[in-house]
Amino acid sequence: MPLIQVSVPAGSLDAAKKAKMIELITEASVTAEGIPAARQFTWVQINEVPDGGWGMGGQAITLEMMKVALGQK
Amino acid sequence: MPLIQVSVPAGSLDAAKKAKMIELITEASVTAEGIPAARQFTWVQINEVPDGGWGMGGQAITLEMMKVALGQK
Amino acid sequence: MPLIQVSVPAGSLDAAKKAKMIELITEASVTAEGIPAARQFTWVQINEVPDGGWGMGGQAITLEMMKVALGQK
Amino acid sequence: MPLIQVSVPAGSLDAAKKAKMIELITEASVTAEGIPAARQFTWVQINEVPDGGWGMGGQAITLEMMKVALGQK
Amino acid sequence: MPLIQVSVPAGSLDAAKKAKMIELITEASVTAEGIPAARQFTWVQINEVPDGGWGMGGQAITLEMMKVALGQK
Amino acid sequence: MPLIQVSVPAGSLDAAKKAKMIELITEASVTAEGIPAARQFTWVQINEVPDGGWGMGGQAITLEMMKVALGQK
Repeated sequence: MPLIQVSVPAGSLDAAKKAKMIELITEASVTAEGIPAARQFTWVQINEVPDGGWGMGGQAITLEMMKVALGQK
Repeated sequence: MPLIQVSVPAGSLDAAKKAKMIELITEASVTAEGIPAARQFTWVQINEVPDGGWGMGGQAITLEMMKVALGQK
Repeated sequence: MPLIQVSVPAGSLDAAKKAKMIELITEASVTAEGIPAARQFTWVQINEVPDGGWGMGGQAITLEMMKVALGQK
Repeated sequence: MPLIQVSVPAGSLDAAKKAKMIELITEASVTAEGIPAARQFTWVQINEVPDGGWGMGGQAITLEMMKVALGQK
Repeated sequence: MPLIQVSVPAGSLDAAKKAKMIELITEASVTAEGIPAARQFTWVQINEVPDGGWGMGGQAITLEMMKVALGQK
Repeated sequence: MPLIQVSVPAGSLDAAKKAKMIELITEASVTAEGIPAARQFTWVQINEVPDGGWGMGGQAITLEMMKVALGQK
């Protein structure tokens, strides 16, 4: 029965990846709960944090910086 | 004294409907609490979830799909 | 179709007031949206902020202080 | 790199199920993103909504009512 | 170890002010906790509420209205 | 004018540290914004995540584990 709210850096996920994330996270939640009937009451929301607004350790980490750090660029 | 955060699919509410929602939800909250003096400390925020990021039962439900399902189209 | 998350000071609402708040806020949201069919997809969550964790203007405002300020005590 | 915030009815998950949910949802998120290096920057938080504060369609649904509805009791 | 989520009216902070806010809020959090080693695990997220969706006392307060009220215009 | 929501592991901050965090984070926010008049409209909320519900990299990190990792024990 969970409500699952995901925050990602804006522009990091296209529509296909969002759909995949909704599908897989719902599956994961239902399995962890162990209640198949709860699937229809499982909501997932993907919110986007505008670039420049994500900070770790006191520093703003832009999407560009994340991509470089994660070997995506 | 509540803080009320509303999430809606992006693009589903125009400015007039947002103003109406803020007005009516504040009224509802003050009535339920039963403390008229709390009105000025009642905040409402309406956040928009970008299209493609709203999932129910494991499936992404686009604004288009919602409108059809709710008989708005 | 909104998801509505309400934050209140812990201990400020009993079960009856919570039920009333869920009922009235849902009604308000459906009216503002103007889509009766969206009612069943309207979720309300009431979260409680532990006492001492609510700050305004830089000052922690306890439930006791709120009650006095709002003429509830 | 997502931050994932899960809301569940208070008392619905024990420590073992929470650990399982954290593990499986992280796995799901990393797979959907397709960036294994993002795992260490994936945070999951499980918040508990106090009983009586979860509403659907205008009605407060208690943990007891959920269990009956989902065939857990 | 906190996660700090800041909501601001969309368009009220430019990139430089966001970076400053991330830096100063992280510093404030680490000082209040009193655990310097927690800095690297302190996350700050700045979310933007679309104009027209910020309500106080039942009224939508636009960015324009805020600027006038705060003497910024 | 920001709303600032802080999530901490339940039990990690006593009342004095919460008051300090509210004071210092508000100060930081006002300084970053550069609008002293916004102070009274700055809200800070400190939410507590029940132990066992905080995950990093797929693993639940208990308060006990955090204290050891951060040299607090």
